[in-house]
Amino acid sequence: MKKGVLLVNLGTPKSPTAADVRTYLSKFLADKRVIDVPRAIWLPILHGMILRTRPKRSAARYRQIWTKAGSPLFIYAQKQAQQLQALLPTTIVKYAFCYSDPSITDSLTEMQQAGVTDLTIIPLYPQYSVTTVASVYDQVATHFMHAQAMPNLHFVTAYYQHPTYIKALAAQIKQALAQQSYDRIIFSYHGIPEKYVTAGDPYFKQCTATTQQVMALVGDVPYTQTFQSKFGPGKWLSPATDDTLRALPQQNVKSVLVLTPGFVADCLETLEEIDQENRGYFKASGGQRFTYLHPFNESQTFTQLLADLA
Amino acid sequence: MKKGVLLVNLGTPKSPTAADVRTYLSKFLADKRVIDVPRAIWLPILHGMILRTRPKRSAARYRQIWTKAGSPLFIYAQKQAQQLQALLPTTIVKYAFCYSDPSITDSLTEMQQAGVTDLTIIPLYPQYSVTTVASVYDQVATHFMHAQAMPNLHFVTAYYQHPTYIKALAAQIKQALAQQSYDRIIFSYHGIPEKYVTAGDPYFKQCTATTQQVMALVGDVPYTQTFQSKFGPGKWLSPATDDTLRALPQQNVKSVLVLTPGFVADCLETLEEIDQENRGYFKASGGQRFTYLHPFNESQTFTQLLADLA
Repeated sequence: MKKGVLLVNLGTPKSPTAADVRTYLSKFLADKRVIDVPRAIWLPILHGMILRTRPKRSAARYRQIWTKAGSPLFIYAQKQAQQLQALLPTTIVKYAFCYSDPSITDSLTEMQQAGVTDLTIIPLYPQYSVTTVASVYDQVATHFMHAQAMPNLHFVTAYYQHPTYIKALAAQIKQALAQQSYDRIIFSYHGIPEKYVTAGDPYFKQCTATTQQVMALVGDVPYTQTFQSKFGPGKWLSPATDDTLRALPQQNVKSVLVLTPGFVADCLETLEEIDQENRGYFKASGGQRFTYLHPFNESQTFTQLLADLA
Repeated sequence: MKKGVLLVNLGTPKSPTAADVRTYLSKFLADKRVIDVPRAIWLPILHGMILRTRPKRSAARYRQIWTKAGSPLFIYAQKQAQQLQALLPTTIVKYAFCYSDPSITDSLTEMQQAGVTDLTIIPLYPQYSVTTVASVYDQVATHFMHAQAMPNLHFVTAYYQHPTYIKALAAQIKQALAQQSYDRIIFSYHGIPEKYVTAGDPYFKQCTATTQQVMALVGDVPYTQTFQSKFGPGKWLSPATDDTLRALPQQNVKSVLVLTPGFVADCLETLEEIDQENRGYFKASGGQRFTYLHPFNESQTFTQLLADLA
């Protein structure tokens, strides 16, 4: 038996240019799991309006976080796979992205060619949502529905309450609190439309379970759970991270410790949206201290969590 | 975490009447994984010819094996699930069939409603083939591609060389050989069209690996691997079980020990085709002794194998 582990994250543009961001967004925003609107209505809006204006603005945001080595999400995906490979030397470890290269089907084909007979797929999202994990599942399922042979398959749906994950987040918070106190801890998760939750997506429940289990270990400190990155019309999960950070200073919450437990690697949504944009909103509204706790990135604890799930 | 195990087998008509056999065959033979012919060509043949004549003949064959309690495959599926449930009392164990009730999607829905968060699916085929295991996979994949939530998923693709499986088959053969000797052991597997193997189906390799690993434990006894149940035109895996059993007596092979390692429960293909029809061919050609070793059926060793895979 030859074991394999495939780590899957969302993806990233190849470069922070409008053209490359357009290529990336045209894949991302065309996914039915992400935008649950009939194609006949959505595709003209996407191609006729959104992809004409958004890539330029988005590229400017990507330029804020781009490093000499490239996109942070890409760099961390590579490192997370390398570190897991070092921890599991007899397993074939690869990474893939839903909406950029290497694709899920390319990585799966490589692993089958390498003789993997027992494959674990770990979406790099601790909380399940139709918009993320189900989309990974659809691509994996479609790949094998067109294959002549397949390995034993293990698909990890969620690890929002895995003890290693919960303890790592709690430890990170306690370490920060040991250095100085904060008026409020902010747990900011990526938002999704409320209608998905109504339709049965367990995402909100799982985010709330993560927050509560982490706080059970942290102790009695004020905290708020918020949702970020709203896109398009319609009601999303609330309260919104940006609204919350704008309002808190007026409620005499002047120092905040912010974490993004739904992300396991820094990306546009953490570095630019939280650490720059939302920090700005908080400060502009009279906030004094804004500390951002980075996701796991290269943490060996996270590598261990991946090994536990593999 | 709430564990669940779903056992999946092919299916069976509800009763051995032509009408119920037609219902069953119309599902079975319409599966693209089973009959790899363009639908525009195949469906008129299936509905215009095959489903007009075959159900009546097939029903007569089913009547040969039917018991007061019903279809053997159905009875053993229930028992295998009950025994596994007894061995794994905290796990929710269910069974389903590809082409009869309870369906895969009905059983999966029940398990999700029962709160299963970690699900193992075990197709009751030790050797993988596109025509069997991939068809189970397609139904599972399609179910979750239309679901809002899903458990951690473990899909067992094959166990053709699992030590418990190999040892159990070898023990069964050795026990028979201890009672009397045979001129030849016959390993009869369900056949598939050769073009599937050419396209990449690993079935032939896996059957051969099972046979060789079992014989490595049994020792130096003459044996032949054959393939049964050919259906339709085109070249199938060879040699055919029936041709082989007709020819052997002329080669001075007068006593045979026959087993069907691809089946884990008795069904039409074992009870009627092997134990009746092929026994008849062998005897009519001058064969003297024909001993048929039944599949696992209610064996606790098989229950243990399922528990190992779960």
